[in-house]
Amino acid sequence: MYNDENIQKMETLKGNAVLVDGVVLNGPIINSNCGEKFIEDVYQILMTELVYKASDTNQKVCEWQDPEPLKELLDLNLKDFGEPHQKLLQLCKNAIKYSVKTSHPRFFNQLYAGMDHYSLAARFITEALNPSVYTYEVSPVFILTEEAILKKMIEFLGWEEGDGIFSPGGSISNMYALNLARYKYCPDIKEKGLSNTPRLVMFTSEECHYSMKKAAAFLGIGTENVYLVKTDDRGKMIPEELESQVQQAKKEGSVPFLVSGTAGTTVLGAFDPLDEIADVCEKHKLWFHVDASWGGSALMSRKYRKLLHGIHRADSVAWNPHKMLMAGIQCCALLVKDNSGLLTRCHSAEASYLFQQDKFYDVRFDTGDKSIQCSRRADAFKFWMMWKALGTTGLEERINRALALSRYLANEIKKRDGFELLWEPEYANTCFWYIPPAFRNMEKGVEYWIKFSKVAPTIKERMMKKGSMMIGYQPHRDKVNFFRHIVISPQVSRKDMDFVLDEIERLGRDL
Amino acid sequence: MYNDENIQKMETLKGNAVLVDGVVLNGPIINSNCGEKFIEDVYQILMTELVYKASDTNQKVCEWQDPEPLKELLDLNLKDFGEPHQKLLQLCKNAIKYSVKTSHPRFFNQLYAGMDHYSLAARFITEALNPSVYTYEVSPVFILTEEAILKKMIEFLGWEEGDGIFSPGGSISNMYALNLARYKYCPDIKEKGLSNTPRLVMFTSEECHYSMKKAAAFLGIGTENVYLVKTDDRGKMIPEELESQVQQAKKEGSVPFLVSGTAGTTVLGAFDPLDEIADVCEKHKLWFHVDASWGGSALMSRKYRKLLHGIHRADSVAWNPHKMLMAGIQCCALLVKDNSGLLTRCHSAEASYLFQQDKFYDVRFDTGDKSIQCSRRADAFKFWMMWKALGTTGLEERINRALALSRYLANEIKKRDGFELLWEPEYANTCFWYIPPAFRNMEKGVEYWIKFSKVAPTIKERMMKKGSMMIGYQPHRDKVNFFRHIVISPQVSRKDMDFVLDEIERLGRDL
Repeated sequence: MYNDENIQKMETLKGNAVLVDGVVLNGPIINSNCGEKFIEDVYQILMTELVYKASDTNQKVCEWQDPEPLKELLDLNLKDFGEPHQKLLQLCKNAIKYSVKTSHPRFFNQLYAGMDHYSLAARFITEALNPSVYTYEVSPVFILTEEAILKKMIEFLGWEEGDGIFSPGGSISNMYALNLARYKYCPDIKEKGLSNTPRLVMFTSEECHYSMKKAAAFLGIGTENVYLVKTDDRGKMIPEELESQVQQAKKEGSVPFLVSGTAGTTVLGAFDPLDEIADVCEKHKLWFHVDASWGGSALMSRKYRKLLHGIHRADSVAWNPHKMLMAGIQCCALLVKDNSGLLTRCHSAEASYLFQQDKFYDVRFDTGDKSIQCSRRADAFKFWMMWKALGTTGLEERINRALALSRYLANEIKKRDGFELLWEPEYANTCFWYIPPAFRNMEKGVEYWIKFSKVAPTIKERMMKKGSMMIGYQPHRDKVNFFRHIVISPQVSRKDMDFVLDEIERLGRDL
Repeated sequence: MYNDENIQKMETLKGNAVLVDGVVLNGPIINSNCGEKFIEDVYQILMTELVYKASDTNQKVCEWQDPEPLKELLDLNLKDFGEPHQKLLQLCKNAIKYSVKTSHPRFFNQLYAGMDHYSLAARFITEALNPSVYTYEVSPVFILTEEAILKKMIEFLGWEEGDGIFSPGGSISNMYALNLARYKYCPDIKEKGLSNTPRLVMFTSEECHYSMKKAAAFLGIGTENVYLVKTDDRGKMIPEELESQVQQAKKEGSVPFLVSGTAGTTVLGAFDPLDEIADVCEKHKLWFHVDASWGGSALMSRKYRKLLHGIHRADSVAWNPHKMLMAGIQCCALLVKDNSGLLTRCHSAEASYLFQQDKFYDVRFDTGDKSIQCSRRADAFKFWMMWKALGTTGLEERINRALALSRYLANEIKKRDGFELLWEPEYANTCFWYIPPAFRNMEKGVEYWIKFSKVAPTIKERMMKKGSMMIGYQPHRDKVNFFRHIVISPQVSRKDMDFVLDEIERLGRDL
């Protein structure tokens, strides 16, 4: 923009221009050709470096740099004048080079991974269209595709009807659920706030996602009013414990208003017994939310949907297709069984500049007042496009394959010396220890556990610096640091599972 | 994926495959070639239909269809099997065809518009990389570019130091501010909730964005506890009114905790007198938030930054570069003057599976606990890339030009018969009536206003159905429906301003 040629052109223009406040108002000021060329060149780079290499295991998963040297490499400083084309392309290349390749077949670190080409193409479209989804007049296509996909997701929950909205993350979906539940309990809270209400308490398992506490804090409920219900050995909420905690809370004089079951816990991938939890909710007239952000996608598999047995009894469900279904971050639905407009009544502010009631079309398609946001991205469209491309059976096959690979990995772990499977996987999470030879005959006292807890972090550091793969680790329950391995992508094969175990041994056997 | 050829290939594979639960685990199951070809073809379509046409005023801004026929045209149904390549491309073409072209030079309908090629290219990169920004290990590049851009934005606020986070929208940035303010007032609220606190009240102007009420409802404060302070004729908060309302609230026994000034109101584009509001906040020790979602970008113009005089005294600021600076939806920063870790203390949940403290790098770069989200998009990167490409002066020029164009439009409105400028524009919002000839000599009684209030909606309907441009309208204060015209894009020129007025006359003179 600010090269000499452009400045000259501008000066020439000013000669015979309409000037207001010293600004030339003739013709556009931007040189579209430069910008278009930039998009074309960046597209070639990202196709070459990312898309065509997405399944190439010879590539590194990451190119580790510590923060301070990376700051230098990225050339972060922002200046008064723009950089030239070639320099900008170099910045893009560096950004790609030093980013983690989350689409790499050996990225097993988070609850998302892989690359779905159809979703990615759809995301390019929405970025180029740059829509905001609140009114039909500015987002007709994205209002309707969202409606269509919500309807289909509701069908998979086994509900006869329902409502919903895509939100920026499962954490925010869970917040929506809390707000709906307390609004249902007492609609006055919307206007009056909580300062004169009794102490509202909610229940979820001790294995729940940390967003439950964040939600309680943010909504003014308070983290202490999130009662954590004990889980069994496999990490599933114990319904009898829930029942007794609800009774206890009532005795204390607090007001239970919501139970959140988890379908697919973050670390263990455990599924709460939803049907039995629903019984407790029904008995005590509590809002039943299911955080199925991670596990909801199992509903698409005829084989595995039984993991979520009872979900049809939920009042609300959080389900993130950007996780197991690879729809791209973010793609998160909050689904609500109520179809009487509760979502809108609870969140509306009826802004007259946006939601005019005298528009020439059916304003029921202006869905923005369901949302806590104003501008909102068209996150549903990429999932809709993927579903069109793969069909339900294609999505189902991904789930089945990912879970079969987890099963395979778990079986291999059981066969190998020095590996210990900590829980039988129910879903795509496989949790295990690698025990280096030097540890195998040591006495398991305090000293052992302190020393052993450093094994996973050290192996993690080595794999990151080598760039060969990425797997998360954490301590959890009574277990010191262990690996949590997640399989999602259809680009992963049995060989990658074998590689994981071989590589952990290579990286850690000297410890 | 599910064409005959692939199914055959799969069957052949199964012959000598490793099978677990009936699933073949050899090799990737996806045909990358098909997917890559799809991305290539979609890229060509979007370049041809969107990018190369972005400044072409011969194109329609929108291709209006009512919801029911559009549902048919889009072929929304999701099926068991995937659709073939050509059919999918057709779906993409339709999605583009029937979407509003928000980058069109005659899209003046919202507080975002236009296409920045550098931001768009950066968005393609982040979509292909599919990062989530919470830990340095998975998002090194995006953690550091976010830090760099926040630092630069903080510099433009005139703060010596500060903290911040990108959030999914100005509405959510405002929620962050409310939560920080009440946490500062009483940190116990995070754990205990609001049920035993006094009634917290906040102050903002009657011209504030509707997200203030949404935020108060969502955070359990209650919409009635949002005290709306009167504004002057130009829509600016009257500091004396604020002072007396704060005093009144204290007399009532409620606890004032926050004042939110607005820098760039939604309808009028008015800027509250921030410096004088800061005096009131200082006197009463209230958190001073500024919702500069729309107007914050004026800080980049040496000429117009005076509109935000006093912003250096704010405790927090919401500023959306996706609006006036065209960084692409969404790109929204919440900036906080506190640099002692308040943002983290207020929002942290310290999930041990994600924010392990025994990592091998400096975990202060794991910024996820500042956020109410878990997965979070890399929204800062596109703004960083734009800034690199255009430099501060390039961004400044955009602001200056947009405001000069608004000025030009306002002057033209004043010159033309049948147009009435309702407020002198301070920013990029120009609010005006078009009065068709038949109305010009009518007596201005109740009947007149009822009839006249239908003029803007009718013209809007006609412009949408013709597809020639898009401008918003609304009633506001004592004025019935009027047009609110927003200029943002550097691809807009004086000719487009003339076109707007000519076209409104063409569409409405028979009314």
